[in-house]
Amino acid sequence: MHVSSSQTLPDGLLERTVTLGEVPGIVWTPGTGPAPLVLLGHPGGLPAMYPRLAARARQCASLGFAAATIELPGSGDRPRDPGLEEARADLRRALAAGDPVGDGIIDRLVLPLVDQGVPEWQAALDALLELPEIGGPVAFSGGVIAIGVRLAAVEPRIVAAGLFAGSFVPRTTFDEARTITIPVHVLLQWDDEGNDRQAALDLFDAFGSREKTLQANLGGHTGVPAHAAEDTGRFLVRHLT
Amino acid sequence: MHVSSSQTLPDGLLERTVTLGEVPGIVWTPGTGPAPLVLLGHPGGLPAMYPRLAARARQCASLGFAAATIELPGSGDRPRDPGLEEARADLRRALAAGDPVGDGIIDRLVLPLVDQGVPEWQAALDALLELPEIGGPVAFSGGVIAIGVRLAAVEPRIVAAGLFAGSFVPRTTFDEARTITIPVHVLLQWDDEGNDRQAALDLFDAFGSREKTLQANLGGHTGVPAHAAEDTGRFLVRHLT
Repeated sequence: MHVSSSQTLPDGLLERTVTLGEVPGIVWTPGTGPAPLVLLGHPGGLPAMYPRLAARARQCASLGFAAATIELPGSGDRPRDPGLEEARADLRRALAAGDPVGDGIIDRLVLPLVDQGVPEWQAALDALLELPEIGGPVAFSGGVIAIGVRLAAVEPRIVAAGLFAGSFVPRTTFDEARTITIPVHVLLQWDDEGNDRQAALDLFDAFGSREKTLQANLGGHTGVPAHAAEDTGRFLVRHLT
Repeated sequence: MHVSSSQTLPDGLLERTVTLGEVPGIVWTPGTGPAPLVLLGHPGGLPAMYPRLAARARQCASLGFAAATIELPGSGDRPRDPGLEEARADLRRALAAGDPVGDGIIDRLVLPLVDQGVPEWQAALDALLELPEIGGPVAFSGGVIAIGVRLAAVEPRIVAAGLFAGSFVPRTTFDEARTITIPVHVLLQWDDEGNDRQAALDLFDAFGSREKTLQANLGGHTGVPAHAAEDTGRFLVRHLT
């Protein structure tokens, strides 16, 4: 892990921009000794997502947690992936035409992010857990939900997953969800335009976890109410402390 | 309102058993001046429900709220209703046989509780709001969900509804839900044996409220996790204080 820049935010949170191999990332650590870690999932594009990610990192710090995120394959400052670009264009065309979004598009749109991204998250976790400011345990929080599901299924260091059902779900993700036993908290925006509500409900049903909560709120993709973010925070507190 | 008995619980909460006309009820008031009021909904049978209702009243008191409940028609110490008894027997037969629970049974099982019970809740509210210990505003919290929906639809003094989706839903309740605009928080047990999950999801979708939250948790009818009860409490705090 190479640290590109480092700054202390006004509230005392240390923010470091890093690269892990070729992958840009950001690490936020409160100055309070080895902290549990929350991996902040997002839809890709760190520069544009930065304000919302920093706000989530500050929420984590207020709960005593470090936070970290990495760029997704083909997003932000990483090289474009022609297959992903084509799948995104196909998705936009289908949504604009009011057509159903078929499994073919979803698989081409999401599975490359999962297949390439999850090993990158795991490598990042190796490096992050070597920092003296980060102790563990580790949770994933956010989207892409298929990435969170795969991580929860294959990465034993992750003890809880707060998942944002704000993206389409490949068929194979349902099978992976059945193998998951860690506590899961799923946030669903009831009128999310970039999502399939029934698929989100079916995915919640599929999780093998003994403790699972679905919280659905009225509104679109970016309209998550403050109380819902606080509830996700309380879920993380229950399982990281 | 006639007070039958009165006791101060160990935590200082004043509990009064009352009758309102012919209807038994219980009123819990914290000793902290005119308090907001939570009407505690339940499936009927105050004597058997008492421990859980008292626990919910103590939670309300810890948030600064008075709480009150009344017996449902045909339940507890009230005269049996032959039509309701027959509908309950038909429901048990259908569930035991694994048959679908038809709209006819649901209407005969639930609508009499709504049609007779809601005016009783409204008359209770008239009397409760005359107590110096109760100020308002007023919320409904619990089931029967069709009673909560009707109350929210017809009773302007109710400003928020925390609804427990733990009973079957008559068709007319969906139409009433569309007219509701107060904030709604719906609690659903994902594997509730006395419920129709899809009907609960459809009912949540129907609410006309601009602010509505569905929280679903793994488990059966009586398995509501502690954190879900706390979330309902926070919903009440947001709208009663």
